[in-house]
Amino acid sequence: MIGVYDSGYGGLSVLRELRAVLPRHDFVYLGDSGRAPYGGRDTDTVLDFAEQCVERLFEEGCRLIVVACHTVSCVALRHLQRRYVQGPDSQRRILGVTIPAAEAAVAVSQGHVGVIGTTRTISSGTFAMEIAKLGPHRVSAHAAPLLAPIVEEAWEDSDIARLAVARYVAQFPGIDTLVLACTHYPLLLPAFEAAVGRGVRVLDPSPAVAARLLDWLARHPGYAEEGTGALRVLCTGDPDVFRRHGARFLGAELPAVQHVAEEQGRLAHRDSVRVVLGQVVRDSAPGAKTDPPR
Amino acid sequence: MIGVYDSGYGGLSVLRELRAVLPRHDFVYLGDSGRAPYGGRDTDTVLDFAEQCVERLFEEGCRLIVVACHTVSCVALRHLQRRYVQGPDSQRRILGVTIPAAEAAVAVSQGHVGVIGTTRTISSGTFAMEIAKLGPHRVSAHAAPLLAPIVEEAWEDSDIARLAVARYVAQFPGIDTLVLACTHYPLLLPAFEAAVGRGVRVLDPSPAVAARLLDWLARHPGYAEEGTGALRVLCTGDPDVFRRHGARFLGAELPAVQHVAEEQGRLAHRDSVRVVLGQVVRDSAPGAKTDPPR
Repeated sequence: MIGVYDSGYGGLSVLRELRAVLPRHDFVYLGDSGRAPYGGRDTDTVLDFAEQCVERLFEEGCRLIVVACHTVSCVALRHLQRRYVQGPDSQRRILGVTIPAAEAAVAVSQGHVGVIGTTRTISSGTFAMEIAKLGPHRVSAHAAPLLAPIVEEAWEDSDIARLAVARYVAQFPGIDTLVLACTHYPLLLPAFEAAVGRGVRVLDPSPAVAARLLDWLARHPGYAEEGTGALRVLCTGDPDVFRRHGARFLGAELPAVQHVAEEQGRLAHRDSVRVVLGQVVRDSAPGAKTDPPR
Repeated sequence: MIGVYDSGYGGLSVLRELRAVLPRHDFVYLGDSGRAPYGGRDTDTVLDFAEQCVERLFEEGCRLIVVACHTVSCVALRHLQRRYVQGPDSQRRILGVTIPAAEAAVAVSQGHVGVIGTTRTISSGTFAMEIAKLGPHRVSAHAAPLLAPIVEEAWEDSDIARLAVARYVAQFPGIDTLVLACTHYPLLLPAFEAAVGRGVRVLDPSPAVAARLLDWLARHPGYAEEGTGALRVLCTGDPDVFRRHGARFLGAELPAVQHVAEEQGRLAHRDSVRVVLGQVVRDSAPGAKTDPPR
């Protein structure tokens, strides 16, 4: 059973490619939709959220996890690997999307790669570093903070989306390849292809992520256990909303989505959820469990 | 000295009105731009951030703080007041923007008020509750998650902005008054006025917030100490970016902006900042100071 983790729905566009090449493997997908988007979050918050989600997928019985979120993969993958994948005896493995995307870009680029993603993905500089390891390519990287929210609103097929994509694409003069370094952007592919014009290739890295996983499993047969092609989906946000929106990313109906509650900033079990409306007054008695250290 | 707190630049559009009616008062503005926007954050995170920012303004010497952020005012004002404004002897006061906005809406509405704001502001239900205390008005409330990011991109005078505003406004059939319950939206006022059409009043609550503060100071003369009209500005994000963008909200040049660093999720002093690029590996030794409790 392979775990797939994303900050929200977006990673379902990666899962779609993974299931296409591994139709008999079982997958568990965890979308942290209740705390998405991660793109504007600070580093420690991204590390915290990533730890919690990866731990939950290990608890679900996964030994192999694909981090299908470019922000987490760029910022936190090394941290997750160091924290959870210890020594050659450990059975746990965590793979990301940044290196497959960089490899795919270098394989097709004539020399000038554009990278577009969230603010956090771009400011990390990780993509440019990975591409620099692979060749002498020039890299232009710009954040597009409006595009994931546009897709979250399901407005990808609107003039708003086309105008916003065109405005961001105009920041990449001279590129020959544009890497969509956010799992929301494949839904904007028609807008990107219309905006870049001839001679520029728009690269959705998801198929490369799937191809690399297939290759990795061939080299690590202990992780290649086949199942029945089953899929379980967990999310931290509203499971009905997740299921409805998620179908656009997966390209197929989702199974029933299980809710993973968050409480006091940590993932918790469903029974302990409290519903919060209006003004909130938190217990602030010294030493109370709800009071963070200060 | 009056403290004004917002999640970012937006509250400068409130500060502008406050300074117009109180030209001889001194103000300290704290914009938590490094962690903005708050609109999609969970409750505990908003409470944490609000506590840190309010504490910092008290440290700066303020006794009176205006929370100029609708999200914080809707979600956390009662918590802040309970935590920091204790008993009649306390010299501290914290005021918000929700009640003045609700009063202003009820004063002009013929009976059907629309409220537009961030996801968190709308899901709190606080606006509808405050309006319900004041009259039998019908309230329609919808979140507009794309609008603050559009203003953050400085794209408010674009077709993208006009189309997005029109699309959101179409969700409010039958209203006679539309309350802009986010301090970013006054920069979209032309787009809103074009979208609502005749017979609907677009209400920027900032002048009402200023009028209510003036009235409050008349009733609490101990807080009405005049100064020289000085303004200090602090922010948690990039101070140069803040100063540049902030001028659009304040309607005037900002003074030099002082940086307040964030470290391990808390506000810290500038000397302790570490610059983070690329992959981050956090020290995860048990008991290490950087390791959050789990």
